[in-house]
Parts: sequence; C-alpha cells; structure tokens
Amino acid sequence: MKDRTLLMIPGPIEFEPAVLSALGAPTTSHLAPNFIEAFGQSLERMRQVFLSTDGQPFVLAGSGTLAMDSAAANLIESGDKALIVETGYFSDRFGAILERYGARVTYVRAPVGGRPSLEEVEAALKKDRFKVMAVTHVDTSTAVITDVQALAKLARQYEVLSIVDGVCSVAGEELRMSEWEVDVALTASQKAISVPPGLALLVASPRAMQAFRSRKTPVGSYYADWTNWLPIMEAYEARKPSYFGTPAVNLIFALNVSLEQILKEGMEARFKRHRAMGRAVQSAMRALELDQVPLKEEYAAHTLTAPRYPKGVTQADLLPRVQKAGVTLAGGLHPAIKAEYFRIGHMGPTSLNDVLATVGAIETALMQCSYSFTSGAGVASAITTYHSLMR
Amino acid sequence: MKDRTLLMIPGPIEFEPAVLSALGAPTTSHLAPNFIEAFGQSLERMRQVFLSTDGQPFVLAGSGTLAMDSAAANLIESGDKALIVETGYFSDRFGAILERYGARVTYVRAPVGGRPSLEEVEAALKKDRFKVMAVTHVDTSTAVITDVQALAKLARQYEVLSIVDGVCSVAGEELRMSEWEVDVALTASQKAISVPPGLALLVASPRAMQAFRSRKTPVGSYYADWTNWLPIMEAYEARKPSYFGTPAVNLIFALNVSLEQILKEGMEARFKRHRAMGRAVQSAMRALELDQVPLKEEYAAHTLTAPRYPKGVTQADLLPRVQKAGVTLAGGLHPAIKAEYFRIGHMGPTSLNDVLATVGAIETALMQCSYSFTSGAGVASAITTYHSLMR
Repeated sequence: MKDRTLLMIPGPIEFEPAVLSALGAPTTSHLAPNFIEAFGQSLERMRQVFLSTDGQPFVLAGSGTLAMDSAAANLIESGDKALIVETGYFSDRFGAILERYGARVTYVRAPVGGRPSLEEVEAALKKDRFKVMAVTHVDTSTAVITDVQALAKLARQYEVLSIVDGVCSVAGEELRMSEWEVDVALTASQKAISVPPGLALLVASPRAMQAFRSRKTPVGSYYADWTNWLPIMEAYEARKPSYFGTPAVNLIFALNVSLEQILKEGMEARFKRHRAMGRAVQSAMRALELDQVPLKEEYAAHTLTAPRYPKGVTQADLLPRVQKAGVTLAGGLHPAIKAEYFRIGHMGPTSLNDVLATVGAIETALMQCSYSFTSGAGVASAITTYHSLMR
Repeated sequence: MKDRTLLMIPGPIEFEPAVLSALGAPTTSHLAPNFIEAFGQSLERMRQVFLSTDGQPFVLAGSGTLAMDSAAANLIESGDKALIVETGYFSDRFGAILERYGARVTYVRAPVGGRPSLEEVEAALKKDRFKVMAVTHVDTSTAVITDVQALAKLARQYEVLSIVDGVCSVAGEELRMSEWEVDVALTASQKAISVPPGLALLVASPRAMQAFRSRKTPVGSYYADWTNWLPIMEAYEARKPSYFGTPAVNLIFALNVSLEQILKEGMEARFKRHRAMGRAVQSAMRALELDQVPLKEEYAAHTLTAPRYPKGVTQADLLPRVQKAGVTLAGGLHPAIKAEYFRIGHMGPTSLNDVLATVGAIETALMQCSYSFTSGAGVASAITTYHSLMR
C-alpha cells in the first residue's frame, strides 16, 4: 500500500513491523482467552503510558474526535460551563463538541502560533464557575504546546475538571496524569501511540468518573456513553469476557504490542527522545532560515514542527519536490494561515535517521526551488542538536 | 494471534488472507493518492454491494453500534415517533438508541424466536404517525430474519422512513436497497463484509438524506453527525483529499479489497451461497435432533444458526468440546434464553468445507457428551442440502 517513501506527517506515521504484523494476523474471537489477555494488558499498559496510577482507561473503535466527543458527552450536562484554552483549530473543535452537548463555552484566545498566558487563564477562571477546562496539549494545526502541568494545577485550584486533548502528545510529550492531577487525557492510535488509525483512547481520573456518576441526565451520545463501556473495560481488565459492541480485535492486538514497546523504551527515555527529535528538526529549520508557526521557541511542540514557506516559495513548489525526494509531509491546516506553512510529524518510531532524511529532503527541495541557503546547514544542525540533547 | 481453530461465531469470522495483508501493510497518508483512490472505490463499491443506485455511503471508524447510533442521531429530532419491529436483543438496542436522541418509541413485539406479522406491523403504522421504522434484518441474538422487502414496502406505503439494521446481513442475506425502497441500511465490517472489526458502514437513500437536511435542530451526537462526514465522503468519492477526522486507513484498504472480492463473486451468487450454507447447517442440526431458536424454518437467517442444547447438555458441556475439536462457536446472547442455546456464524469467506468441519466438531462434542444420535447424520445432511441448493 506504500513504497519506501517516509511518512513524516503528524499521524499516521511510520509504524513498527511488529505492530503491523499483529494488525494483519488472522482475527480471533473477541471472547477468546488470548484476546481477553491482550485487551486486559492494553488497559493496564495505558495507565502506565498515561502515567496514571488510578485512572479508568477506555479503548473505543473510532478516531481521535471520538475520544474528544466521549470526554465532552460524558462530563457535560446541558448548561454546564466550559473554558477552552485556545491554541488552534483543535481547540475550536473541542469547543464545538462541548457546545453540542449543551455546554456554555468561554474561550481564552491567543494569536495564531501563540498561547494564552497563565494569568489570562486564571483571570477567566476567577470570573466564572466552570465545570471543565479543555486544553489541547499539542495543537496539530499550529504545533503549539501548552503548559499542561501549570494549567491543570490552576484548574485544580479553582475546582474545575481538566481535560487534556493529547491526540498529538500522549506517549511523545511529557504528560503525567496523576502527578499533574489531570482529569481526562485522550489520544488516537495513529499518533505517538504508534498504531494505525481506528482507536480512540482515553483515561479518566477518579474525579472525572465521580463527575460522570453524579450526572442527573443521560449522556448525550449513545455510542460514546461510558455507561455502556465502563463495565466492558472493567471486565476485560479483570480478564473476564464481556460484550457491548464488538471491539476492534486486530487494532487492539496491535495496540498491545505497541504499548509494550513504548514501556520497554520507558516513558522518561521516550520524552527525552521526542524532545531531542523536535528540537533537532526545529534547529534545522532555523539553520535553513525558515520561520515557524509557534511564536516563541518554548511554544514549539516536540512531536511536530510547523515551518513557514520562505518568501517566494509556495506549497505547490515545495511539497511535491520533498515527496519526490522520498518524504511525505503535510500541508497547513489552520484556516487563517493554511497556505503559509507545512507540517512535519516526528513521533513514535521516528528516529534520528528519519529526521536527517526529512531535513535532507527539504534541503533538496529548497535547492530545486532556487532558495538560497548553506547546503548541509539543516542536517548538520539537526544531528548536532539531537546528540547534544540525548547526552 | 490465532491458531488453525476455525472461527465460526457471528462475527468476527475467518477473513481472506488478501484482506488481512492489506490490513497489515505499511500505512500510507490519509491524503495519499492511492488511499484516496481506495477510499473512493470503497464508497462506489458499497453502493453496489448494498444494491443502491443512488444512496449516500458513509464509512466511519467504529463498531456496528456506531452505525445504528449514526442512523438514529441524524434522522431523529426530539419528539419524533419511531416504530421498532422487535425480533431480539438488537431491536431493543435500536429502541434505546432512538430514545437517546429524543424519539418516542413504539415496539411491535414477538415471542423470542418469532417475528411480528405484517398485519401487526401495519396495524401499528395505522395507529400513529411515525417518522422512522427500524427493522433488524437478522437479529444476531435469535438468528431470526425479517421480511425486509415486505416491511420496507409497508413503511413506504405509510410514508415512514425504513432503517434496516443489516449488521448480520449485508453482503450475505438478500437485501436490495433501491428495489425494495429501503431508506437506511447499515452494517459492521466484521460480519459478511468480511473485514476485521472497526468500521461502521451505512448507506442512506435520497429520502433519508432529505429528512436529514430538513432537520431543525442539531444532530444529537457530534462524532456521528453526517454534517461533518458528508463532505468527506463526497470528496473522497470525487477523488479529492479532504479532512475531518483521520480515517482508519488500513481498515479502509482492507475494506476495498474485500468489497472487490464480494463483487467478483457477484451479489446473486453470494446470496445463493449464503442461503445454501445456512440451510445446510440448519438441516444438519435437525438431523442431529437439535431444536433451534427461530420458531419456524422460514424465520431462520442464512448467516447464522442458533441451535438449542439438547436435554441434559449445557454450554459448559458442549462448547469447550467443540473448541477442542477445532471450532470456536458462540454462546447465547438473548437475556431470556442465554443459557439454552449457542450460535454458529456462517458468512463471508465461510465455505462448505468450514460448514462440514463445524458440523463435524459438533457431532464429536455431542458424542463425548453421551448424547444419542446417528453418527454422520449431521455432516451428511449438510453436504446434501448444500449441493441441492447450489444446483
């Protein structure tokens, strides 16, 4: 389905052969002992990957949007107030989802590439009584990372449930659910979790589960309703067969293989490697004198990079040439600046080798666009930065 | 993930190696030209498999319950009236889903293993003004098949939208969406569509799409909302890239392979083969003097069989012995009779070979349970019935 062209978009990404083998293996029954064991292990391993000691994991067949939908539908009752810390396209989507389930949504906004300050967020928290605060850890449309630790602390201080959209962060960016007192963290399989698309993953803190249990009205969505799925997750984790809807058997076997690999690398090592990959790509872009969407270096995520096209170079000039050089990149996504930038995903199994190949392909394409730069400056900066951060 | 034990449950089933290979192949971008082509082809092929000339296909990442959820959420507005033709557990689930989105639900019920008569359904249609009527084509909990052609005709006559839960029927049982004027038909990938679990599939008639477009209130579920997905389906079918949520790339490649195989066999040949397999298994059960859940032979589906345990034999006696004989079967599902029967799935790539192996494993297990029957009567009846129907 794919030649050797490197897939360096912000998900799906390059996956490990063992994960793909598990996905393509003959399907067993969803009640077979080996599947029950794999599903049970996956739930336990999710807790370890999310660094949650006591959260309730959910694995649902669906995209990352279903994970967002599920958090909103189960925690919001009509009239509840929600605060959005806006850092891009996916913050707005979370707002739309929360509104769909009856929330009255307040946005703390920032310019594209920026992020609201803690003071601005605290001012909003002071002004009104919110039930939930939603934060996009890494917005895939801007490559902006938020300070989840500080934001979750603020939420706790004002007794607001914190929901972290970790679609482009979990298993790549540092995220410590229990230590940081995050209430819901969610992601999709095809990002740093490193499994082909089709699974929505979520962990809810005991506080979030308590808020869910205290609902007075039914959950707005039937398919996303934890009332249906909680007994299933509890049963599989207790290694007992159970049925509500047929789980995505092959994807869950693949998930279990990937979670095992992630934990074998170790979360601390994984965070460090992603930081090094992110900063390597970003230093390369600076060496090539390409601006980036995040307005400050500290706003830049480690799982993807969003460089702006240099003056006189368009998407149609650059990306097909990068593709011809053997690397698939993604175009812009944020409506306000869609044509002005491109996106490089670097997470999960991505290695320094892939980073160098990617920066090299960008150099090759820029050269073909007659853009003036020092040949080799990008790749040299990438490898140097990577090694300095991996020391 | 699975040894050579035959998986003969009502989904997931045995899948074709080419489908599994497509599933486990390295993942490409959801915007790559070869994926756009595969997704576009899948949508076109769905229309052919559902025998719809003008329906709108939807492919969503999720289980079969999401397909039901999506039909209900998009067609129901608070206060709308819905009629359920009840034939088992999944009819009740559809009722619960419709109620979740505000429908006032009326059930036309039948005893377990039975189905409401057309007269009973018509009487209900006369009594009230319904927006939708939901029919389970094959209820996986009872193995009862409904007369969709006649029921859809009634619905049309009373200007009610017909929704057919074809989870255990589409691509196995005869279903002709356009000719029979069915408004929504839906299924899940792991049944007769013959792709591992994780995709919800649905085709909506122009009348259903018109009802959706005439809504006055937003769709109750965000994730299932056709407003979000319709432009995506239209774009992929027009072979244009588009994004709302990341599609389940690998599953869609696998779907396209399977739909191609289904159409290569041909829908008429496929209906005939499923009829022959179903009647073969059911005649074998009669030859072994095992009763079945469907109260009449004409109520029995062709995609699964629900035999009752003979007197003195329990699930714990029989199913582990069948398993040891190399065939995985499913226990009962309908709450009222759960311990009294078991279920055999026979759809998609299942062949006469698999049917004979399955009936043989049941004979072996029954013998070990000291149940008295004529050895070989089951397999002999199966092969004879199969060939007589395939002539």
